[in-house]
Amino acid sequence: MLDKTRRGLIDGIAPHIASLPESGIIEVINYGRKYDDLIKLWVGEGDQPTPRFICDAAMAALHAGETFYTWQRGIPPLREALGEYVGGLHGVTVDSERIFVTVGGMQAIIQTVQMLIGAGDEAVIPTPVWPNIFHAVHVCGGNPIHVPLDLSETGWRLDLDRFFAACGPRTRFLYINSPGNPSGWVMPREDMIRVRDFARERGLWIVSDEVYSRFYYGDDGAVAPSFLEIMEPDEKLIVVNTFSKCWAMSGWRIGWLVAPPELGQVYENLIQYNTSGVAGFLQQGAVTAITDGAPFAAETIARSRVGHELVCRRLREFPRLRFAKPQGAFYLLFAVDGEPDARALAMRMIDEAHVGLAPGTAFGAGGEGYLRLCYATSESLLNEAIDRLATILR
Amino acid sequence: MLDKTRRGLIDGIAPHIASLPESGIIEVINYGRKYDDLIKLWVGEGDQPTPRFICDAAMAALHAGETFYTWQRGIPPLREALGEYVGGLHGVTVDSERIFVTVGGMQAIIQTVQMLIGAGDEAVIPTPVWPNIFHAVHVCGGNPIHVPLDLSETGWRLDLDRFFAACGPRTRFLYINSPGNPSGWVMPREDMIRVRDFARERGLWIVSDEVYSRFYYGDDGAVAPSFLEIMEPDEKLIVVNTFSKCWAMSGWRIGWLVAPPELGQVYENLIQYNTSGVAGFLQQGAVTAITDGAPFAAETIARSRVGHELVCRRLREFPRLRFAKPQGAFYLLFAVDGEPDARALAMRMIDEAHVGLAPGTAFGAGGEGYLRLCYATSESLLNEAIDRLATILR
Repeated sequence: MLDKTRRGLIDGIAPHIASLPESGIIEVINYGRKYDDLIKLWVGEGDQPTPRFICDAAMAALHAGETFYTWQRGIPPLREALGEYVGGLHGVTVDSERIFVTVGGMQAIIQTVQMLIGAGDEAVIPTPVWPNIFHAVHVCGGNPIHVPLDLSETGWRLDLDRFFAACGPRTRFLYINSPGNPSGWVMPREDMIRVRDFARERGLWIVSDEVYSRFYYGDDGAVAPSFLEIMEPDEKLIVVNTFSKCWAMSGWRIGWLVAPPELGQVYENLIQYNTSGVAGFLQQGAVTAITDGAPFAAETIARSRVGHELVCRRLREFPRLRFAKPQGAFYLLFAVDGEPDARALAMRMIDEAHVGLAPGTAFGAGGEGYLRLCYATSESLLNEAIDRLATILR
Repeated sequence: MLDKTRRGLIDGIAPHIASLPESGIIEVINYGRKYDDLIKLWVGEGDQPTPRFICDAAMAALHAGETFYTWQRGIPPLREALGEYVGGLHGVTVDSERIFVTVGGMQAIIQTVQMLIGAGDEAVIPTPVWPNIFHAVHVCGGNPIHVPLDLSETGWRLDLDRFFAACGPRTRFLYINSPGNPSGWVMPREDMIRVRDFARERGLWIVSDEVYSRFYYGDDGAVAPSFLEIMEPDEKLIVVNTFSKCWAMSGWRIGWLVAPPELGQVYENLIQYNTSGVAGFLQQGAVTAITDGAPFAAETIARSRVGHELVCRRLREFPRLRFAKPQGAFYLLFAVDGEPDARALAMRMIDEAHVGLAPGTAFGAGGEGYLRLCYATSESLLNEAIDRLATILR
C-alpha cells in the first residue's frame, strides 16, 4: 500500500523530471561520504578556501547591513568591474550593460536554457561534458544532442562536420565548453570562426561556457580563444562564467553571463522569477575578488599548471592508462585498459584507495570507460592520491 | 538594420520567455531609484538589517573555510533544525529527510513548478497573489489559472466552488498562499480540509506557500492553519517557506521546502541542476537563526502587529479608501475610489509623495485598482509615509 502510494508520488510529477538521472558525480560523492581520509579529486575545486581579503569584503558589507533585496541584474559596481575584467581578458570592449550576475555558473546556464528552448527543442553539445549542462536542457523539457569528441594522438578534437550535421530543425543553440570539462579540449580559433559562421547562417545561438578560459596550456597566449573576440555585442552569443575557479569561491555560488544588451529585461525577469538575485553582501566580496584578486588568481592558475605537469608525468608511468595531455581546464580524463566499467572502478578507488575520482559515464556520450581527476590542488595531495591509486592502476 | 538585428534577438528566444512581463513591483522600484529620500513600502521586507548574531555565525563559518561545494539538499544541521522548527510550529512531526534548503523561497517555488508541470499544464491559483508565483509557471511553459478572491465586509474570501470549477484536465497543482500576499487573506482550516479532499479525489498536488504563517492576526492561535496539520508525509503536498521574513534575511536568499521523503532524489537533482545548492557558510547563519533567533522573530512579528493596527487605524481616516483588515501577512491592499489606474497612482505617489507602494495590477486577476503597502516596518516610518500620502489619498 505504502509502495503504491510512493510510486504514485513519482508518477504524479512531470515525466521529464521523474526521469532525470542523479548526477554521476554526486553519486560517487555520496558513496564516499563514509570515509574521513578520502582524497577528493572528483569535483572542480581545489583544497584552498576563499582568501581572507575576499571574505573580509563580504563580511564588511554584511556588518554594514547590506542584507536587503538587491539589484536583480547584479549590483552596479560588480557589473562595472566584470565588464572591465572580461573586456581586458579578451582585448575587447564589454559594456557593463551586457553583464548579469547569477547564482553560480549553474544559474547562468539554466536561465539561458529556459530562455532559448521550449519543450522538444534541441541543444547540440560536444561531449563528454559537465553533466549539469545536458541535464539543464532536460529540466527545461528539451533534448540535448551529444556529439562525442574524438581522442587522437594530439588530444581531443571535435569533428565539425559531424557537429554541424547533428543540427536539425529543432536545434536552438550550440553549447561550446572550451576549455572543456572534463576533456581539457580547447576549440581552436579557426574552428570557432567556422562555428560562428554556421550559427549565423542558421540563426542559431551560441552558448559559450568559458569558465576555464584562464586555465589554458597553449602556446599562443595566457587565455584560451573566446567567442567574445570574434562576435559583435548584438549577436546571438551568451557567454557563461563563474567566480568559483580563479578565486576559490565555488561554495559562494556566484557566476555571471555576458549577453546582448537587448536581453536585459529578459534576464532581469528570469533572475527575478528564478532566484530573485544574488545576496548583495556576497557580491561585494566578488567586487573585491575582481579588483584585488589578480595575484591570487595568478597563483591558482600557476598551481593548476604544476598539477597539470605532475599528473601527466606520473600517470604516464602506468602503461594501462590512455589519455591526452589536456590543453586547458584542470582535469585529466583517462581510460584504463581492461577496465571498461568506469563507475565500478571509481567505487573501487573510493573503497580500496580512498581516492575520489569522477566516472566518465557521468559526462555523456564518449565519456564511457574514462575517469576524471581534478588536478587543481596541491602537489603533495596529488602525489599522495597517485601513490594510493598505484595498485589499482598498475 | 540594428533595430532589425535587435528585434531578431528577441524573436530568437522561446516565445513563452519573450512574452514574460516585467514584475510590476520591480517596475516601480526601478522607477523610484531616482529619489534618495523615498520611503519604500513596496517589497516584503522591513527596515531592520539581519541581526548581528546571525551574521556572526555565517562569518565564523566563512573564516573557518566553509567555502567549498556543499550538500545539495542542505547541510544536515540545518535540515535537522528546520524539521524540529516546522514540526514544533504546527504540532506535528517533520522528519529532516523531508526538508530541502533552497536559494530563497523563490527557488523552492520554481523547482516545484519544474517538477510538477510540463508545457501546457495548468496550476490553479487564488489571486491577487505575489506575481513571481504565476510567472514561475510561465517560465516553465505552463499556464497559471487565476481565481480571484472576493473582498467582502469581513475580509477577502475564496469561493471554493469557483476554485474547484477552475480545475480541468491539464491542472497539475493548486497553489495556496495563506496568509496571502498581498491580500492578507487566511484560508480557514475547514476550507483547507475541503481543498485537501478535492485534491485527493483528483490526484492533484497542493503547493502551500506558508511564508507568512507566523504573521497571523486571528483569534485562534499564534500560527495560521497549515496543510501540514491535516495531511500525511507521503501525500501530494509541498510546503514552501523562507528565512526572509521572521529573521530579516531577505537579502540572503535562503528558503526551504517540506516535501514527501520519496521526492528526495528528485529535489536533489533539481537543486544540483538549478543552483548546485546554497552557500554552506550562509546556511550556518540560518542554523543560528533557528536555534537562537526565537526572540528576534517574536519582535519582528510584534512589529508587524503594531504596523497592522497603525495602518488600518490611520487609513480608515480616508473615506475614499476601501480595504479589509488583513487576517495575516504584513501587507495592506487598498483601493482608492476614483483612482482606477493603480500603476499610474503608484508612480504619482513616488513622484509627489516620495512613497513607494506596489500597484495591485502586479498581482494578477482581482488586483486591478488596488495598491499594496508593506507595514512590516517601524511606526515612525509608517506614520511619515501616511502623512506624505495624505494629499493624494484625501
